[in-house]
Amino acid sequence: MEIPTAEIVCLGNELLMGVTTNTNATFLGDHLTKLGYEVRRITSIRDDLTLAVEFLHEVFDRKPAVILMSGGLGPTYDDIQLEVLSKATGLELEENAIALEQVIEFYRKKGAGLTKERRKMAFMPFGSTVLKNYVGGAPSCYITYKEIDIFCLPGVPTEMKDIFSRHIVPLLKEKNNLELYEKRFQIFQSIESQLAPFILAIKNKFSNLYIKSHPSYKDKVGVIIHISGLGKDVNQEVDEAINELQTIIKENIPNIRIESLVD
Amino acid sequence: MEIPTAEIVCLGNELLMGVTTNTNATFLGDHLTKLGYEVRRITSIRDDLTLAVEFLHEVFDRKPAVILMSGGLGPTYDDIQLEVLSKATGLELEENAIALEQVIEFYRKKGAGLTKERRKMAFMPFGSTVLKNYVGGAPSCYITYKEIDIFCLPGVPTEMKDIFSRHIVPLLKEKNNLELYEKRFQIFQSIESQLAPFILAIKNKFSNLYIKSHPSYKDKVGVIIHISGLGKDVNQEVDEAINELQTIIKENIPNIRIESLVD
Repeated sequence: MEIPTAEIVCLGNELLMGVTTNTNATFLGDHLTKLGYEVRRITSIRDDLTLAVEFLHEVFDRKPAVILMSGGLGPTYDDIQLEVLSKATGLELEENAIALEQVIEFYRKKGAGLTKERRKMAFMPFGSTVLKNYVGGAPSCYITYKEIDIFCLPGVPTEMKDIFSRHIVPLLKEKNNLELYEKRFQIFQSIESQLAPFILAIKNKFSNLYIKSHPSYKDKVGVIIHISGLGKDVNQEVDEAINELQTIIKENIPNIRIESLVD
Repeated sequence: MEIPTAEIVCLGNELLMGVTTNTNATFLGDHLTKLGYEVRRITSIRDDLTLAVEFLHEVFDRKPAVILMSGGLGPTYDDIQLEVLSKATGLELEENAIALEQVIEFYRKKGAGLTKERRKMAFMPFGSTVLKNYVGGAPSCYITYKEIDIFCLPGVPTEMKDIFSRHIVPLLKEKNNLELYEKRFQIFQSIESQLAPFILAIKNKFSNLYIKSHPSYKDKVGVIIHISGLGKDVNQEVDEAINELQTIIKENIPNIRIESLVD
């Protein structure tokens, strides 16, 4: 069972300057994981053509199955996502007729005309397939380059989420029929270092599952444990690992309270 | 004026799986920027020794002035930050007496003893300086390697913030006396594509300032503009750029409403 890999690339100085929290990466990481992709890296880079092109070359060399790019599709001078992609792939930017129609329609509804800045949003790397943006002005697109599927998304979260769910999820499902099965539970009045040997024992026994603990520092003090796996018949294995882990913990720490968690 | 560069490296599968939003990167990006550092990349990577060591080698090759690492200092099997750093630098992990004392003291106060898992947190790359964790159990540390200052932080936000503010800010200030001067304002009832030509004109005139617009999609609809610069006498230049930009916008869009923003 080979798990396809993914990288998330976020463009925007505001991310690096700490002006904006990268919730797009959270959304995309969550969905890619549940669609059976292993997200290998999430990188935020600056709106700098040279640095960004250099960075994309590195990503291409790692040969992930998919790249999701977010941020920088808009009309301003520092919206350079498609220029970066064009330079990095060598696929020339050309005015895409379908994208241009969408841009014209979007601004016509606002009672505005086409300007040079708006027209720029219809220039896409040669061979791109347009993904219509139903929320904002900048059309999205995707291309396949060196067997990597590259999806271009805007940075505004409402636009990004709509395009991802509407257009990209079906394409990703088509390419990968693995799915993630995950369960979580919380242990109260305990700390990670107390549980570490039990977690490790289960981890060693169920080596193809992913087992992770982290302190729950938000609502209730304790430790949250995730157990997940990818595949068709992994449900049973996850349930078994959870039972065994909870049993060991209860045997070793009398009166401990454990609760299942639901999303 | 050479601006020192920084990279933020976050370890933790939970970030890549979209279980946790990377607010640590926001905090660190904001503070590094205000301390006069240019944050070049923020990368989240998995708790995978081989991939993480490979990644750190790439970061070292880019020679940033500082690297801030966050996540993976704890007691569980997948807390591998210091092991990664040790493998990547070739500086052997050794039990640090000061760190060990802090670990023992932390658990003694909880009425708990030293276990193998807790003891692990006192193993640091040879030559590390310990940074005491006043909030949680895992001590932090820093080392200088190939002229890069590498700071190791835990992933739990309350611990990370306390260690950063208490120990690391003074060290970073010592190394860099540049500071960021920034102002923001909001333009109402407008969209980025309408403002793009005016922003570009000011950007071209004030080439050493950083000028960024982004849609304000949270509270009030409009566009937020940031203008900032680094250095000692940059205040005046930022103020001038703001005046000129607001004047052009008002001349071109009658009755437009503009408001200054304060953090």
